[in-house]
Amino acid sequence: MLDTEHLTESDVRRIVREEIERAFRADPSRNTATIIASKGTLDWAYPPFILATTAAAIGMRTSIFFTFYGLNLIRKDFEKRILVAPTGNPAMPMPVPMPDVLTGMPGMKAIATGMMKSMFRKKNVATLRELIDSAFDLNVNLVACQMTMEVFGYKPEDFLDGVQFGGAAAFLSEARRSHVTLFI
Amino acid sequence: MLDTEHLTESDVRRIVREEIERAFRADPSRNTATIIASKGTLDWAYPPFILATTAAAIGMRTSIFFTFYGLNLIRKDFEKRILVAPTGNPAMPMPVPMPDVLTGMPGMKAIATGMMKSMFRKKNVATLRELIDSAFDLNVNLVACQMTMEVFGYKPEDFLDGVQFGGAAAFLSEARRSHVTLFI
Amino acid sequence: MLDTEHLTESDVRRIVREEIERAFRADPSRNTATIIASKGTLDWAYPPFILATTAAAIGMRTSIFFTFYGLNLIRKDFEKRILVAPTGNPAMPMPVPMPDVLTGMPGMKAIATGMMKSMFRKKNVATLRELIDSAFDLNVNLVACQMTMEVFGYKPEDFLDGVQFGGAAAFLSEARRSHVTLFI
Repeated sequence: MLDTEHLTESDVRRIVREEIERAFRADPSRNTATIIASKGTLDWAYPPFILATTAAAIGMRTSIFFTFYGLNLIRKDFEKRILVAPTGNPAMPMPVPMPDVLTGMPGMKAIATGMMKSMFRKKNVATLRELIDSAFDLNVNLVACQMTMEVFGYKPEDFLDGVQFGGAAAFLSEARRSHVTLFI
Repeated sequence: MLDTEHLTESDVRRIVREEIERAFRADPSRNTATIIASKGTLDWAYPPFILATTAAAIGMRTSIFFTFYGLNLIRKDFEKRILVAPTGNPAMPMPVPMPDVLTGMPGMKAIATGMMKSMFRKKNVATLRELIDSAFDLNVNLVACQMTMEVFGYKPEDFLDGVQFGGAAAFLSEARRSHVTLFI
Repeated sequence: MLDTEHLTESDVRRIVREEIERAFRADPSRNTATIIASKGTLDWAYPPFILATTAAAIGMRTSIFFTFYGLNLIRKDFEKRILVAPTGNPAMPMPVPMPDVLTGMPGMKAIATGMMKSMFRKKNVATLRELIDSAFDLNVNLVACQMTMEVFGYKPEDFLDGVQFGGAAAFLSEARRSHVTLFI
């Protein structure tokens, strides 16, 4: 074919455009999602796990970096630590409107947490435990922030088996090669 | 020109670099913004709409994906749902400093919401209604998260005309081709 | 070498792939981080500064755009404005569990702020002042949102020396050329 002839500039430009189009389609940045999970309440536990498991399910290389309050989500004792507080969030659906001074009464966090879990169960939403298991099954990298662990006095053995450990530099070296970068 | 001559390797490298530079300039990822709006209070209603309408105004293809509490922002009855609570946010400017137990008293959410709206009006900040209209005018895609709709029991007809419906996979397939990806 | 011979299509494809690989490695989007700091409490002051100074330290061109409550972080009087409130955040580590109605009592914000600062000091975490100084030393661009300044009635002279001023369009023109874009 062309291999035996002289290539002209327009042949070359055509070849180049083909290769560039292929390279952009194959750009690993399009196939990588890097998510920070910084919050430790039941409502904010869902977005990082739902987005990460969905990304992994459509074939993206996916990491969640857990920092600050987010570390609670991957501790072995996460069940008893992950609560939800309606106080200060007037957008939370409540059976009746309540002022914050009422939602802040003793016991209300347990009530709100129970109500949210029950609503999720009725709607067949996965539990946090199920989402964590899915994340591991789909090879999502779950990374605990070492600096926050140090500050809060958490030990590696406090975390679920399979959790990795890293710092902000490790997060950024992954994130700089990702189109999807989210701070949750 | 070159078309009639033999191309050398250095001719080819020059052509390739020109084409690559053009391709990076035209990279659609640079011209796409994909934003998640997850919060449903008056203060956090502004960032997604201001960023999205600005992005669209400078020619970017722009989507906002409304999930969790953020669904309230595009319901037909958003006016009465979008409030602001000073409780738990010591950074909110207040006429006088108040402990949370006071800001949490009955009626304080309505007072804080009225104060914020009045401050915005005095400073000629667009209302939420105006920002939503601008977003539609500028062809920002407004997408409601179907999974959260199901959990909260919201129906398609609860949402403003023009709102689209999609899941996390739809969000990610847009976000993976966007440089600007923000979780608000 | 090849310069004196006829280039074949496969020569050209090889050259093109080399050039594309080089271009992707040198893509400035991989070396740029653009962060929005929208919150003004002590706990949420840390993530933007820690991520930005780490990004700058590994050679990334880095900007933080301060908007909404985040403006407080770069005011000259930031020390007395940056507090932390445990109310509404059941994930905050507390010496004893407390309902929000207690954490919301007068004086509790000052106590919580003092406790968090003391925990950080004991663990040799940098103070906010030190992080701001590092950011300037590492040439992180600190940009105050002009629209929020106008709304809150803040003047340019209220801000630390070296702070720049810009709008959402300036943020987006930087962010569209960044892989790392985070809303904190």
